[in-house]
Amino acid sequence: MDDFRSAMQAAVARMDPSSAAVSAYHLGWSAADGTPLRAPAGKGIRPTLALLSAQAAGAPAAAGIPAAVAVELVHNFSLLHDDVMDRDTERRHRPTVWTLWGVPSAILTGDAMLTVAAEVLLDSGSTHALEALRLLMTTTRELIHGQVEDLQFESRESVDLQQCQQMADRKTGALLAASAVLGCVLVGGDPAITRALDSYGRALGVAFQLIDDLLGIWGDPAVTGKPVLSDLRARKRSLPVTYALSQGEAAGRQLAAWLRSPATDDEDALRRIAELIEATGARSWAAGQAAWGIRQAEQALADSTIPPQIQAEFMKVARFVADREY
Amino acid sequence: MDDFRSAMQAAVARMDPSSAAVSAYHLGWSAADGTPLRAPAGKGIRPTLALLSAQAAGAPAAAGIPAAVAVELVHNFSLLHDDVMDRDTERRHRPTVWTLWGVPSAILTGDAMLTVAAEVLLDSGSTHALEALRLLMTTTRELIHGQVEDLQFESRESVDLQQCQQMADRKTGALLAASAVLGCVLVGGDPAITRALDSYGRALGVAFQLIDDLLGIWGDPAVTGKPVLSDLRARKRSLPVTYALSQGEAAGRQLAAWLRSPATDDEDALRRIAELIEATGARSWAAGQAAWGIRQAEQALADSTIPPQIQAEFMKVARFVADREY
Repeated sequence: MDDFRSAMQAAVARMDPSSAAVSAYHLGWSAADGTPLRAPAGKGIRPTLALLSAQAAGAPAAAGIPAAVAVELVHNFSLLHDDVMDRDTERRHRPTVWTLWGVPSAILTGDAMLTVAAEVLLDSGSTHALEALRLLMTTTRELIHGQVEDLQFESRESVDLQQCQQMADRKTGALLAASAVLGCVLVGGDPAITRALDSYGRALGVAFQLIDDLLGIWGDPAVTGKPVLSDLRARKRSLPVTYALSQGEAAGRQLAAWLRSPATDDEDALRRIAELIEATGARSWAAGQAAWGIRQAEQALADSTIPPQIQAEFMKVARFVADREY
Repeated sequence: MDDFRSAMQAAVARMDPSSAAVSAYHLGWSAADGTPLRAPAGKGIRPTLALLSAQAAGAPAAAGIPAAVAVELVHNFSLLHDDVMDRDTERRHRPTVWTLWGVPSAILTGDAMLTVAAEVLLDSGSTHALEALRLLMTTTRELIHGQVEDLQFESRESVDLQQCQQMADRKTGALLAASAVLGCVLVGGDPAITRALDSYGRALGVAFQLIDDLLGIWGDPAVTGKPVLSDLRARKRSLPVTYALSQGEAAGRQLAAWLRSPATDDEDALRRIAELIEATGARSWAAGQAAWGIRQAEQALADSTIPPQIQAEFMKVARFVADREY
């Protein structure tokens, strides 16, 4: 963990001083004025997966550090740019970078993160660096594709459930799967293990997105850190909303009419919409799909030759994802 | 040339359909509605340098194609993002991407270009792909650093000439130098040739920036394609302006006062400022420095073992840069 932290710091230190300072803020290492913050507790789901991924292939966790740093940087590159595009003003209870330093700083710091992510893999010293970087770049293109679709869907009258799921796979699933695979690729692991980790990661990604969407509607603000009913407030066409619309019954039509109406912050009205969505079966559908994803993830591991104690660690991550309360 | 064009098209075809369409517009291949345009005449200075760079190492030009595509994509990645940051509404007589499709499209298409640039080198099949990509990523970080400084300088009371030159080296010189080197690195050329090409490229970059700055003040709009006195209109602290300010005489002080005054589009007033700058010796200083850069570039080649006919091609590029009228 400490090794990961110092590798992240070394990666950020490659940047120009301004991008490095903005990164330190965005990553939660410092306040907006540069004052160091007490180190946050966890290292995040993607780096955790990347370190386990190296161990799944029989290598020490340390061998996965460049992969862990690279996925964390690509994830944060996409957050910085997405916050600009989505005009999001808060992330993890703090003002977003573009609101503090302007759009140019957010764009440039994101660019620097993507660049340094590639450099960290190139400088890993692994004979499989090229292969690992190819996977990371393909994944980054998937992420970009997902964000392109997400923005397109906002202005589209109807989006079917399959399109919505594909978009979520690209925006969320692809990088989670890549995180679970990248450490293994970097240490030159057995292709059969790579395939098992990819299946695990994709299934986990599906569950992750569904649970995020459930939290966005029915999550407890004290737990999620987001405002109550936040996704409805933002009229996000999340998976449960798209499912409800696809049911085409009276409730679906009422929901469609609401999506076309002017936005409101009236909490009672939003609560009624949440009830409407639940009445279509969308909440239990999403919860069921998420649980299915977690079981699929577990099965992918069980069918592999990954050491049992590493499988158990991967399942801890899966259960952490599944048990976020909603 | 046709091989380069089709390699560019194949690279863009890796992107999601929306980013590919936006790229095709930005690169001048299609109109905003997607109608194909007659192919533009040249292939641009950076790809030309990258192809020559492979030849300098004794390889066929074709071996430099992945390098040529990669530098062209990184260049255009930076243009797309810079246009957003600088709020530039026109480029090469056409509306910029963000004015047509919005800031998110410009950010995402730029991101896709950077990603694909890396992929093209990774998939080049060269045993030196890793080394080439490391150079490209270091250069990209320099580009980002240069843009960070450029934006910082806008809000700074005074910038000294050395800082201004360093910024220009990063923003313009670094990628020109990398273009001149990358083909050679990709084909595993002799390090002595790599060093000669780097010296050539850095010197060319200095000349390129100075001449661009001269054109921005004294260029003929019919030739430059930019509005008359465009850099003064935008109050750009270009190298000649910074030189003039550094002279600290009456003219320098008058210029500083003008930079602090509210912006004006009055052409007569801008012409008087141009005369003021010229009176400090800034115009002949810049022209002299540019000519010196071209001579340095030529010397770097002459001192190397690069085949004479390839040296001659490199000097054609240098003279093309030098002879843009101003």
